[in-house]
Amino acid sequence: MNEIKIFCPATIANLNCGFDVMGVCLEGIGDEMVFRKVPGKGVRITQITGADLPFETEKNVAGVAALALVNAANPDSGFEIEIHKKIKAGSGIGSSSASAAGAVFGINELMGRPFTKHQLVDFAMKGEALASGSEHADNVAPCILGGFTLVRGYNPLDVIKIESPSEIYAVVLHPHIEVKTSDSRAVLSPNVTLKAAITQWGNLGGLIAGLYTKDYELIGRSLQDVIIEPMRKKLIPGFENTKNSALDAGALGAGISGAGPSIFALCKGQTSAEKVAFAMSNAYLETGIPFDIHLSKVNDEGVKTI
Amino acid sequence: MNEIKIFCPATIANLNCGFDVMGVCLEGIGDEMVFRKVPGKGVRITQITGADLPFETEKNVAGVAALALVNAANPDSGFEIEIHKKIKAGSGIGSSSASAAGAVFGINELMGRPFTKHQLVDFAMKGEALASGSEHADNVAPCILGGFTLVRGYNPLDVIKIESPSEIYAVVLHPHIEVKTSDSRAVLSPNVTLKAAITQWGNLGGLIAGLYTKDYELIGRSLQDVIIEPMRKKLIPGFENTKNSALDAGALGAGISGAGPSIFALCKGQTSAEKVAFAMSNAYLETGIPFDIHLSKVNDEGVKTI
Repeated sequence: MNEIKIFCPATIANLNCGFDVMGVCLEGIGDEMVFRKVPGKGVRITQITGADLPFETEKNVAGVAALALVNAANPDSGFEIEIHKKIKAGSGIGSSSASAAGAVFGINELMGRPFTKHQLVDFAMKGEALASGSEHADNVAPCILGGFTLVRGYNPLDVIKIESPSEIYAVVLHPHIEVKTSDSRAVLSPNVTLKAAITQWGNLGGLIAGLYTKDYELIGRSLQDVIIEPMRKKLIPGFENTKNSALDAGALGAGISGAGPSIFALCKGQTSAEKVAFAMSNAYLETGIPFDIHLSKVNDEGVKTI
Repeated sequence: MNEIKIFCPATIANLNCGFDVMGVCLEGIGDEMVFRKVPGKGVRITQITGADLPFETEKNVAGVAALALVNAANPDSGFEIEIHKKIKAGSGIGSSSASAAGAVFGINELMGRPFTKHQLVDFAMKGEALASGSEHADNVAPCILGGFTLVRGYNPLDVIKIESPSEIYAVVLHPHIEVKTSDSRAVLSPNVTLKAAITQWGNLGGLIAGLYTKDYELIGRSLQDVIIEPMRKKLIPGFENTKNSALDAGALGAGISGAGPSIFALCKGQTSAEKVAFAMSNAYLETGIPFDIHLSKVNDEGVKTI
């Protein structure tokens, strides 16, 4: 195998109560990448479509992740990468993570899989660090492993994959505004009340329990965020109204996807998700801000060869 | 059925990362209570052994919990209660909770079970409130439901029972010192860093995942407390040394049981628990403070008729 084409899915991080630890992988939205084994050494980005990104390997998220992997494995060949972006940068559904995760997955496949998917998460974080300034796994983990993922901790990296209950669908509404990651970090207070933290970890526990027991009601009751959302929602015009419209239309829960500005909802079943998507669209139209909206089943496989 | 005798188990609350939300039920340590249906109305405490507790129903934890239940059910008879305490008050393994949980369980049995076990938790919290000043369920929930319990939230009360992996044993070392609940609350800072909170809820998620997947290693990695233990451990002489001796002897995790002063460890298998109990005893002997130590399998049934 000297050439493969892969699908690199979008992801929703945080999921209300799981700030910096939870994520989920989507099926209907993602980038494509092509990898070629070539003579020589190193990693070269040969084509980029759909986004204005640097071709220099060391300045490109996919390039940096790929180099981390290649430096560890020291293979007998070089690699060429084509990146075809479909996930918009800064949308809050893991655009840079998809590139980082795709890069390590694709090269690992061409090398004959010397690393497990769990190990790939570690390499992909190096690419993420270029985009966000710090190594975090809440998007790359679900992108690589599929389903829902929990990052228990980082020293060492400890990621748990949880299979999605079969009927979970996600709706993502992406307002065409820019929320800088630095801004969305800056509004966060470095301290929180112990009371709010207890509420948050009670809900995170409920979410994990609901996922394992496939208890949709419990998942819904647990999708609450008393810490981050109150601070960040002001950065997203129309957030509250759109979230409430999703809940009124029957969503299990709704909130800010990653650092925003995308607004997500989780639903039970496709029919419910369609109803929720319609309600969210209608609500967001009132802002006058352009947006696009996606509806997707949860992707239990993660990044894959197509 | 006009008379029953029940076993009211001890419980460990918090479990490191689950402050105010997690608890686990023990098998080998607990009170006994006797209930009698009698003509008339009301609840009367007729005998108390093993502790110096008030006989007035309204001033007794079991009495208050019983009254909450009886007022809701309005049965055609009265009830007499005997309380035989074996769990020492103030030990940090749910002494008052055992009385409150036992009271509502026993009377519910004599009434023909008008309430589910989950509903009983709500009534038992009223008794807990008399003992601790606030309604909380982290000990009464595991005492009534058995196994591990997660209190997701309180508005309304939402308790999830998680069956224990079959090989989990607990060791509890109870130093004979008094730590007032007011003191153990007073050392807690009302604010915590967001960073520590994230670490804590990552671990809580890992604990829940480990319990569902019966992954003892994951349970062990998750039994960490970066928030409460650092503040409270100074109230318990010999804590650090005893905890470390438990971990060195192979415990999955160890920490403060409830508000202390008891120190607990969770272990995989009875042999490991015996080794850990021995190590903890030896470590605690150095303090010169008298103590007792219990070894118990997790009790998956909870309070029960004997």
